[in-house]
Amino acid sequence: MGGRVFFEDLEAGAKERFGRYEVTRDEVVEFAGKYDPHPFHLSDEEAAKTHFGRISASGWHTCSMMMAMFVEHLQERQEASIGGVGIDELRWLKPVHPGDVLSLETEIVAKRRSRSKPGIGSVWTRMVTYNQNGEAVLSMTAIGLFALRDPDAPVDEA
Amino acid sequence: MGGRVFFEDLEAGAKERFGRYEVTRDEVVEFAGKYDPHPFHLSDEEAAKTHFGRISASGWHTCSMMMAMFVEHLQERQEASIGGVGIDELRWLKPVHPGDVLSLETEIVAKRRSRSKPGIGSVWTRMVTYNQNGEAVLSMTAIGLFALRDPDAPVDEA
Repeated sequence: MGGRVFFEDLEAGAKERFGRYEVTRDEVVEFAGKYDPHPFHLSDEEAAKTHFGRISASGWHTCSMMMAMFVEHLQERQEASIGGVGIDELRWLKPVHPGDVLSLETEIVAKRRSRSKPGIGSVWTRMVTYNQNGEAVLSMTAIGLFALRDPDAPVDEA
Repeated sequence: MGGRVFFEDLEAGAKERFGRYEVTRDEVVEFAGKYDPHPFHLSDEEAAKTHFGRISASGWHTCSMMMAMFVEHLQERQEASIGGVGIDELRWLKPVHPGDVLSLETEIVAKRRSRSKPGIGSVWTRMVTYNQNGEAVLSMTAIGLFALRDPDAPVDEA
C-alpha cells in the first residue's frame, strides 16, 4: 500500500502485536522519584515490606512505556494520529519490575467519524501490555483522534 | 487527629483541593522525547500546524504531574496508600502548555473493604486537574488500595 495511514484505513477487528521495552532500575527510580515517590517504587528494602516484594515501576511509568511503544509503531506506519481523547478501564494487572521486557498488543474495537469536525475521526483501541513471560501487566481502551485522507467525503459514508 | 490516615478514616463525599505544579518547557520536551514523541509535543513549529497551536504536554505527562501532586498530599497526610488497581473514564479535556500551573481537586466517591484480603480496602476517588485559569484539563476516577488500621475488624462492619 505505502503512504500514510489515515482514519479510513483503520479497520475494527484489526490486531497487531509489536514493541520491545526493557525496563531498567535506573529509569524506574528516576520516574518514581519525579512523579510517584511511594517508597515501594524507590527501593527493594521498602518494597519487601509490601505485596510488591521487590521494586516495581509506577503504574504511570508503565503507561508511559506502553505509549513509547505505541507511538514508535504509529510513526513507523506513518499513522495520522492527532491526539488523544481519553482512556477507559485502565487496569494495572501485575507489577512491572526492573529486568522485565514489555511488548504491546492492540486491537481496534470501534471507529466513528466526527460530525462536528468531518476531517477527524475517533478510534477506540484495546491495548494490552505483556511482560516477557506472556503475562498481561496493563490493559486499557484508548480513544484516539485520527485525520481523514478525504475530509470532504460525506459523513454518512465514512 | 494526628497519626496515619487509614482506610477507616476515608469518607465518601470528602473533597479536597491542593497542589501546585509549574509546567516547564524543558520537562514537557524531555517527557515527550522519551515516551510520546508526537511532533506537536516537541516543537512549537509542529504544534502550530495542529489544533494544539503551540507546544503541549503529553497526556501521560499530565497524568504523571497529577500523580506527583497526589502522592505529595498522601505523604503529607501519611495516608496508608498501598497501590493502584486502575483508572476509569480518564479524559484529557484541554491541552496543557509550558507556563501553566496545575492544581488538583479530589473527591472520594466510594469505598469497599476487600473480602478476600480483609486488611485492604479499595477507594474510588474522582480526580480533576485544573490549570491557573480554573479550567479542568484532566479528569478521571482512580481506584486505589489502602491499608486498614484494624485488619481484624469484622468485614461487615467496615
